[in-house]
Amino acid sequence: MNEKKKVVLVGCGFVGMSFAYSLLISGGVDELVLIDVNKEKTIGEAMDLNHGLPYARQKMKIKAGDYSDCKDADIVVITAGATQKPGETRIDLTVTDTKIVKSVVSQTMESGFDGIFVVACNPVDVMTYVTQKVSGLPYHRVIGTGTLLDTARLRYFLSEFLEISTHNMHAYVMGEHGDTSFVPWTHAYLGSKKILKVCEERNITQEKLDEIYHDVQQAGYEIVNRKKSTYYGIGLALNQLIQTIFKDENRILTISCYQNGEYGYKGIYNGVPAVINRNGVQEMLELELNKTEQEQFIHSCQTLEHIIKTVVDLLL
Amino acid sequence: MNEKKKVVLVGCGFVGMSFAYSLLISGGVDELVLIDVNKEKTIGEAMDLNHGLPYARQKMKIKAGDYSDCKDADIVVITAGATQKPGETRIDLTVTDTKIVKSVVSQTMESGFDGIFVVACNPVDVMTYVTQKVSGLPYHRVIGTGTLLDTARLRYFLSEFLEISTHNMHAYVMGEHGDTSFVPWTHAYLGSKKILKVCEERNITQEKLDEIYHDVQQAGYEIVNRKKSTYYGIGLALNQLIQTIFKDENRILTISCYQNGEYGYKGIYNGVPAVINRNGVQEMLELELNKTEQEQFIHSCQTLEHIIKTVVDLLL
Amino acid sequence: MNEKKKVVLVGCGFVGMSFAYSLLISGGVDELVLIDVNKEKTIGEAMDLNHGLPYARQKMKIKAGDYSDCKDADIVVITAGATQKPGETRIDLTVTDTKIVKSVVSQTMESGFDGIFVVACNPVDVMTYVTQKVSGLPYHRVIGTGTLLDTARLRYFLSEFLEISTHNMHAYVMGEHGDTSFVPWTHAYLGSKKILKVCEERNITQEKLDEIYHDVQQAGYEIVNRKKSTYYGIGLALNQLIQTIFKDENRILTISCYQNGEYGYKGIYNGVPAVINRNGVQEMLELELNKTEQEQFIHSCQTLEHIIKTVVDLLL
Amino acid sequence: MNEKKKVVLVGCGFVGMSFAYSLLISGGVDELVLIDVNKEKTIGEAMDLNHGLPYARQKMKIKAGDYSDCKDADIVVITAGATQKPGETRIDLTVTDTKIVKSVVSQTMESGFDGIFVVACNPVDVMTYVTQKVSGLPYHRVIGTGTLLDTARLRYFLSEFLEISTHNMHAYVMGEHGDTSFVPWTHAYLGSKKILKVCEERNITQEKLDEIYHDVQQAGYEIVNRKKSTYYGIGLALNQLIQTIFKDENRILTISCYQNGEYGYKGIYNGVPAVINRNGVQEMLELELNKTEQEQFIHSCQTLEHIIKTVVDLLL
Repeated sequence: MNEKKKVVLVGCGFVGMSFAYSLLISGGVDELVLIDVNKEKTIGEAMDLNHGLPYARQKMKIKAGDYSDCKDADIVVITAGATQKPGETRIDLTVTDTKIVKSVVSQTMESGFDGIFVVACNPVDVMTYVTQKVSGLPYHRVIGTGTLLDTARLRYFLSEFLEISTHNMHAYVMGEHGDTSFVPWTHAYLGSKKILKVCEERNITQEKLDEIYHDVQQAGYEIVNRKKSTYYGIGLALNQLIQTIFKDENRILTISCYQNGEYGYKGIYNGVPAVINRNGVQEMLELELNKTEQEQFIHSCQTLEHIIKTVVDLLL
Repeated sequence: MNEKKKVVLVGCGFVGMSFAYSLLISGGVDELVLIDVNKEKTIGEAMDLNHGLPYARQKMKIKAGDYSDCKDADIVVITAGATQKPGETRIDLTVTDTKIVKSVVSQTMESGFDGIFVVACNPVDVMTYVTQKVSGLPYHRVIGTGTLLDTARLRYFLSEFLEISTHNMHAYVMGEHGDTSFVPWTHAYLGSKKILKVCEERNITQEKLDEIYHDVQQAGYEIVNRKKSTYYGIGLALNQLIQTIFKDENRILTISCYQNGEYGYKGIYNGVPAVINRNGVQEMLELELNKTEQEQFIHSCQTLEHIIKTVVDLLL
Repeated sequence: MNEKKKVVLVGCGFVGMSFAYSLLISGGVDELVLIDVNKEKTIGEAMDLNHGLPYARQKMKIKAGDYSDCKDADIVVITAGATQKPGETRIDLTVTDTKIVKSVVSQTMESGFDGIFVVACNPVDVMTYVTQKVSGLPYHRVIGTGTLLDTARLRYFLSEFLEISTHNMHAYVMGEHGDTSFVPWTHAYLGSKKILKVCEERNITQEKLDEIYHDVQQAGYEIVNRKKSTYYGIGLALNQLIQTIFKDENRILTISCYQNGEYGYKGIYNGVPAVINRNGVQEMLELELNKTEQEQFIHSCQTLEHIIKTVVDLLL
Repeated sequence: MNEKKKVVLVGCGFVGMSFAYSLLISGGVDELVLIDVNKEKTIGEAMDLNHGLPYARQKMKIKAGDYSDCKDADIVVITAGATQKPGETRIDLTVTDTKIVKSVVSQTMESGFDGIFVVACNPVDVMTYVTQKVSGLPYHRVIGTGTLLDTARLRYFLSEFLEISTHNMHAYVMGEHGDTSFVPWTHAYLGSKKILKVCEERNITQEKLDEIYHDVQQAGYEIVNRKKSTYYGIGLALNQLIQTIFKDENRILTISCYQNGEYGYKGIYNGVPAVINRNGVQEMLELELNKTEQEQFIHSCQTLEHIIKTVVDLLL
């Protein structure tokens, strides 16, 4: 058995590599293996990272590898997939990415892997579903990044607008990492104070909050339009998720997790706040959604189920 | 006056942005301003970084800006310049980059900037010369990354080969960040033990050491061939340099610094170990080079002076 | 002016030194000066800390000093005062500590100090009042640690009991750092979920919550009975407060701050959640307390005012 | 098997607790168990540390325990022993501490412990010998702190005197952690430059270097005279040693390690630079000592052997 904290990263595009680079700087992982269809690229990436080691705080073993390295990995992170292009929706990537993820997961499982999958390729909720189906691993050990980045964006925008630290913004983006996500504003807090109450006191209208959510939802497109793709934010979000798992923190993060009726829907993965620890998803944080929020969540689930039933299941 | 630790980054390509992203993760800087000829890109980059803030350890103000932001900056980091392409030598970039750097430095100085320049565009020793000439700032406040990354690579390769931590590899790559660099092996130590002595005891030949240096020198090309450009290693090297300045550490780093006869040459910038603190370069660490090493250094200086005299000075 | 982040610590007992040692390890401060009536002790303490520097992450200038060092300090932390002994209440310390703090603050102000006072000696709400009165500094630049440690204890106990990370426990101890403090349970959240709701779902009674609060309130005594005094928890709480100030975080912390009618009382310092940044207290987080909570707060204020009027004001 | 990084600390005096507190702040360990003859004290200490967790960077499980907790521990740190008092030499503590350490080690081994012992009670070289003898564990898995703190002090004093970062001071205190220790000055470097050469250039006499060493050797006494005992420096030194082990760094540290003839002596523990990794002591760094240095080392060994033969062995 491997005492070391070992991560295998499948997919060395900018998202994967920004995550890898963040680990080099933050520490917390003992061994990182890079896998990509472009094997030469992984060798180059490992070299580039390794040359930073003398200026990093902590030793990390970094190498280009292959699926046999997954055997004793604690976590396999999948960022493989086609890049989202300007004008393209996240949903458009489904067919291509289903095939890619299916292949990645099969090869990972053949190694004897028995750890936690973290899925970060889009459409992420669907790809997490694919990963669980193909791997057959328990639901709680297959986690998608879901609305982890959307939630970070929401907190950043709220923090800028309300001029209070992001650390005191307790608000979530729920649902699909995509067009049907939503913010349950009745469960959004600044410290222990309802954000709706703060808005009332400061004469901030619901329209302004809707605008903030709109900005969150458009953020990816805005970045893609300016720099082709988005990777630093998601790189740090992935880092946070991995650290929470390794440190067994029981911390609440909004990730894509298997729905077993907690919010009124079963059989798919969707974005909700959940308690994460060394076992993966410990449990969902079940919020009492109001009627509108509940409908938004169901709508999001239906959208995902539709894609799964009409596109994905046929490919598995 | 600005109490905050403020960095302006000019040039938001992969080198610059890898440095920026590393600051977001490591902390240590209060404010970061991004400047690039592609203004839209800086806006996108700032967005991408900012969205990582809720998962970062420390608050950092990050924004797209312009040269007026340099006025109260502590450090301006220049990574602007044409990207090195496969097959192209670092020297080939000289003419283009001289014009770019001249323009960047002029605009920076017009803001009233009175801090430290850190130059990371290639050929870096020459561009550092350009920066000093155009800015007119004191020599010790214009620093090039020089052989900082080469030295990291040397230590990494030695560490892998000798199986001792990079932190105990006290060896330097000196001279031009380019083809005329060299390792003064008589000044290379593993802890307090001469590496030449270690090699003798372990039956390691000088050829093997030459091979390691060859790998160091080719490392950039090897990475570029595999992933088009190299940026994570230099990103962390830049981070180390900036932290050493801000924390006023008096730490020895191999950087490109102005030669005033210490090693027998005057009037250019070249890579040597030097003591860095809040004022920039405090002093060189003057090693007693043996005859061969001394000739290698002079050769490196002559090469740089030749380019400066025949190409660069005509453009200033 | 001093660009460096400089803290002067007055009082080098275990609380002060645990804070100082934590800074050495965490970093974030450039210069630390130690002052104590026992000058020899400060010299010994500075030596002991300095010898740890080679194994610390960041350089910090540490020295024994005197009040003239406060001139350009950013923050003066006061932990001077008599140690709380077994059986002694926090209130018993008032007379002795008023005299000590008065003397400390006078000498600090004579240096020309114009920064932020952080007060951590007991009874802390009263000593913070004394510090403001004697210094004449604006209210927002005189901060007491108030219920910062009580709040940490509450979150730790809740975290252990509910098995969710302390980072997701958004609950405060308010009022006096002493017998009249209270927890406004209607404003206590686990993530974005009311803790009262969580308790209802898990069949946890109000009695159990009362028991947790009782443990919080007794924690100091329990520790003092076992190890004579308590200092590691408060050391880290002080570290958090100082970092929040220096990093200009706008983060909500429960500290002792001047009451100007926000919660229905004026003229004293008492513990409330407030937004802290580089200027000190930016603003209170005004929660809508229910009738019981409001009465508890007023009772706490009255207790403090009584001590001030009958004991403290006579000594100023 | 326990995947978590688990440390058991035996001895909760100021040295042990300063180490424990440093772990809480630096992170890097998942679980910490406190053992002391005063069980109530360990409960109080665990409480005091735990209450700092909400302001710490990383989760750590901290509890008061007993020897059965050593069963699956990775490292057992022994700081138990009588405190050094003013006027008392480190050697005076031998008899008392031998009995204490013998008892501690026996009880630890009864749990089924099969990890690494780190010994920090004085006289440390002798107590490390006792620990190995009583435990029967392989030599490389029993490590004493030796001259780790003396070396830190040497680097700090040199750094202050030469005005270069401690990170560039590559010098060791060798031999007994006590009166017969010495500095092999011919192996002391500032970066890659001999300190003897630096002194020559700066007109610094050997007397000045002797004075620095004298200050190193007296440092403990100087601190004890001012604050009764010394613990912050050694707390951080212990932290460094433990991190080096857990991160499998292959880093050179001066620790007390078993002498098997490398420096001309066999059968005792003494302080030398050695490579430390997850297995404990990987190997010594064998320096070529000059005649004087060699004699000093042998003298130090003889002193230790004398104590062992005349005092310690009779007690085992």
